[in-house]
Amino acid sequence: KPGEVLENLDAYHPADAADLLEQLPRSVLSETAELLGEQFPTEILLELRDEYREIVVDNLPDAAISEAVNSLDSDDAALILEDLAEDRQSAILENMEIRDREELERVLAFDEESAGRLMQRDFLAAPEFWTVGQAVDHARANAEDLPDVFFEIYIIDPAFRVVGAVPLHKIMRTPRSVPLGQIAEEIEVEIGPDMDQEEVAYLFQKYDLTSAPVVDESGRLTGMVTIDDVVDVIQEENREDLLALSGVSSAGGFDTVVSSFRSRAPWLLINVFTAFIASGVISMFSATIDSYVALAVLMPVVVALGGNAGSQTLAVSVRGIAERELSGSAARRAIVRELLTAIINGIVFSAAVAVIAFFWFADVRLSLVIAIAMIGTFLWAGLSGILIPLGLQRLGADPAVSSSVFLLTTVDIVGFLSFLGLATLLLL
Amino acid sequence: KPGEVLENLDAYHPADAADLLEQLPRSVLSETAELLGEQFPTEILLELRDEYREIVVDNLPDAAISEAVNSLDSDDAALILEDLAEDRQSAILENMEIRDREELERVLAFDEESAGRLMQRDFLAAPEFWTVGQAVDHARANAEDLPDVFFEIYIIDPAFRVVGAVPLHKIMRTPRSVPLGQIAEEIEVEIGPDMDQEEVAYLFQKYDLTSAPVVDESGRLTGMVTIDDVVDVIQEENREDLLALSGVSSAGGFDTVVSSFRSRAPWLLINVFTAFIASGVISMFSATIDSYVALAVLMPVVVALGGNAGSQTLAVSVRGIAERELSGSAARRAIVRELLTAIINGIVFSAAVAVIAFFWFADVRLSLVIAIAMIGTFLWAGLSGILIPLGLQRLGADPAVSSSVFLLTTVDIVGFLSFLGLATLLLL
Ligand SMILES: [Mg+2]
Ligand SMILES: [Mg+2]
Ligand SMILES: [Mg+2]
Ligand SMILES: [Mg+2]
Ligand SMILES: [Mg+2]
Ligand SMILES: [Mg+2]
Ligand SMILES: [Mg+2]
Ligand SMILES: [Mg+2]
Ligand SMILES: [Mg+2]
Ligand SMILES: [Mg+2]
Ligand SMILES: [Mg+2]
Ligand SMILES: [Mg+2]
Ligand SMILES: [Mg+2]
Repeated sequence: KPGEVLENLDAYHPADAADLLEQLPRSVLSETAELLGEQFPTEILLELRDEYREIVVDNLPDAAISEAVNSLDSDDAALILEDLAEDRQSAILENMEIRDREELERVLAFDEESAGRLMQRDFLAAPEFWTVGQAVDHARANAEDLPDVFFEIYIIDPAFRVVGAVPLHKIMRTPRSVPLGQIAEEIEVEIGPDMDQEEVAYLFQKYDLTSAPVVDESGRLTGMVTIDDVVDVIQEENREDLLALSGVSSAGGFDTVVSSFRSRAPWLLINVFTAFIASGVISMFSATIDSYVALAVLMPVVVALGGNAGSQTLAVSVRGIAERELSGSAARRAIVRELLTAIINGIVFSAAVAVIAFFWFADVRLSLVIAIAMIGTFLWAGLSGILIPLGLQRLGADPAVSSSVFLLTTVDIVGFLSFLGLATLLLL
Repeated sequence: KPGEVLENLDAYHPADAADLLEQLPRSVLSETAELLGEQFPTEILLELRDEYREIVVDNLPDAAISEAVNSLDSDDAALILEDLAEDRQSAILENMEIRDREELERVLAFDEESAGRLMQRDFLAAPEFWTVGQAVDHARANAEDLPDVFFEIYIIDPAFRVVGAVPLHKIMRTPRSVPLGQIAEEIEVEIGPDMDQEEVAYLFQKYDLTSAPVVDESGRLTGMVTIDDVVDVIQEENREDLLALSGVSSAGGFDTVVSSFRSRAPWLLINVFTAFIASGVISMFSATIDSYVALAVLMPVVVALGGNAGSQTLAVSVRGIAERELSGSAARRAIVRELLTAIINGIVFSAAVAVIAFFWFADVRLSLVIAIAMIGTFLWAGLSGILIPLGLQRLGADPAVSSSVFLLTTVDIVGFLSFLGLATLLLL
């Protein structure tokens, strides 16, 4: 039976085999992992999404994991080890050769979202006086020791500091006799092992990199980050932002009800309190509503439209910050633009709402009240939508994570307060 | 003065120079473009974000654009030409050599978000019987004709069909005498020029590609897509989804008030009508509210929490669809998970709200009414949050674009209807 499963999986690319396994119920996936044991293909293990890989790893024997970890690049080995309970992790590390173990322990010591975790320890480096021919001959003679995939040769000085890089396509087009130093390209970015993965991803996008060297504090070349892993980081960070904006606090592990609940309850809990603050504002005007029930009918329109206008601005701002488009004078320009957009939207949509309200309730003063309240709410929403994320960013907080709460709460308060307050002044 | 500007720009990497130019006010940027004319560096032009590149292109003389377009890969040339007004575009195309013109016209004929636009026409291809040595010698002898950057050599048969690819690192590690056919890797993906860029990006992520061949209907190799351009597509599609979920309908061009207004007004306009539908529901219960003002105070709590719970589910679902995680049995599992999460959230948070409401209004029946209404609203929100995007996807529509409207409108209706309806039955 394990043979059959393996044969079936073997017919597919590991990425497709992983997709198939992810379709199985968790219990069947656990059984498959147990059944295959050491034969579970490591390439497939790497392609599984986090939550599924954890299930498989939990059901594989230590020996299978040791073997997988031994055969992998350090970044991929760390990916598998980080899923393990601490005692199991150390048991497996202790069974490794001391050199490999120390290397992995060094990688695992870096922050989970750092360049140190993202990088692999395998790369090809050469001194600048080597010729193209020497580099090629060296690679051929040491084919086994080369990284599985690489795109450039790093040029190092005697102290192992990176002074440049030669992309492989340049090796292809250059005569054997030319020294590498002569065709080396400048390294545009300096990535240390502590750099946040989001920053690494930004640099890869900006400078169109396919790989980049990682250098330690003393400037020595210590690893290499490759674009395939960076693409995964880009997706992860995008997922985080999109979910955070809707109040979902975790970026993965949505396959169980428990993890879903955990990732959503915090923001709903906060929302219970913010919703009651808004209720408090309304209750200040109970008497007004009591004598003018149309207010209760119309007040949700004010905060619904204000909240949506604010969310629009917020999404644009959070995205702009994520793409580093909102620094210096660009931020000032964006604030002005959002203010003007809020004024225009406020005028256009408060007019629309006032007209509809007039046809409904035939009360000019009521239409006037809702129009003024809406313009004020739109202004507040637009300014909060840009200033809250910019402020959070300046404070070093993630602008995607808590902006929505602040924004929607204050918009509700401003909306109810201005609408019901004006109504109390002008209608009673 | 142009010399000075150029000198200043030259001190930077084109990507950084572009960032600096993007900090300038639009009028100064226009002037700079006019001033530099044909000297405006093409590398910088390519690095500018769409809205800024358009400003520059509008202010460059035709000659400068012709020159830029002539020196560029077809994908980059198309990027610049597509910004132009039609008559200007044809004027410039007419001044080009007929062969280049025809090639560009072919590229421009593809859909703007297709693989045909994304690909470049330059690539390196060789028959499978060539040896590694022959390939390297050929590349050295034809260095000028090679693409600026490339990562693999495509293996073609006599009919110019791709039968495999040899990554450059394999050329590096393989002796000169080995034929390419022997070390070629299978092409995992078949990309036609009409494939949507989102699909291309998905394949690159899934199979960890750095470049991929594009083949036309007859199977002939016609171009190559590279990872740097795919990374830009990934960001673009992520931006689109994030903004669409917040009701912003355009993914770029946010630098003017006009474009901001245009991208946001549609959803606000729809929201005017949906908000009044909710108002209509409330007005059905005017009499109830009139005799029980606490209902007006509490009703926003029901729809605020329900709306947020729904938005959370929606974000998770839209993201899951974008990452292709919700097909087949995974979709069924997700529906069950969302239903259970909605039940748990409904019970937990309706209990919390009922308790707070009881301490406030000391009315058991009111607490009961809000609790039941909230459980119903949470259930509706959770199911809509997953079923609406899945349904839209099945209909071939973009699940990110219109899900929010549907969801929030129906949640408001269900929330107000259940809360005020139950109150009418149980409290009066
Ligand atoms: Mg996968
Ligand atoms: Mg990780
Ligand atoms: Mg992060
Ligand atoms: Mg780029
Ligand atoms: Mg990978
Ligand atoms: Mg890797
Ligand atoms: Mg982030
Ligand atoms: Mg840029
Ligand atoms: Mg990948
Ligand atoms: Mg580029
Ligand atoms: Mg390109
Ligand atoms: Mg698209
Ligand atoms: Mg899309």
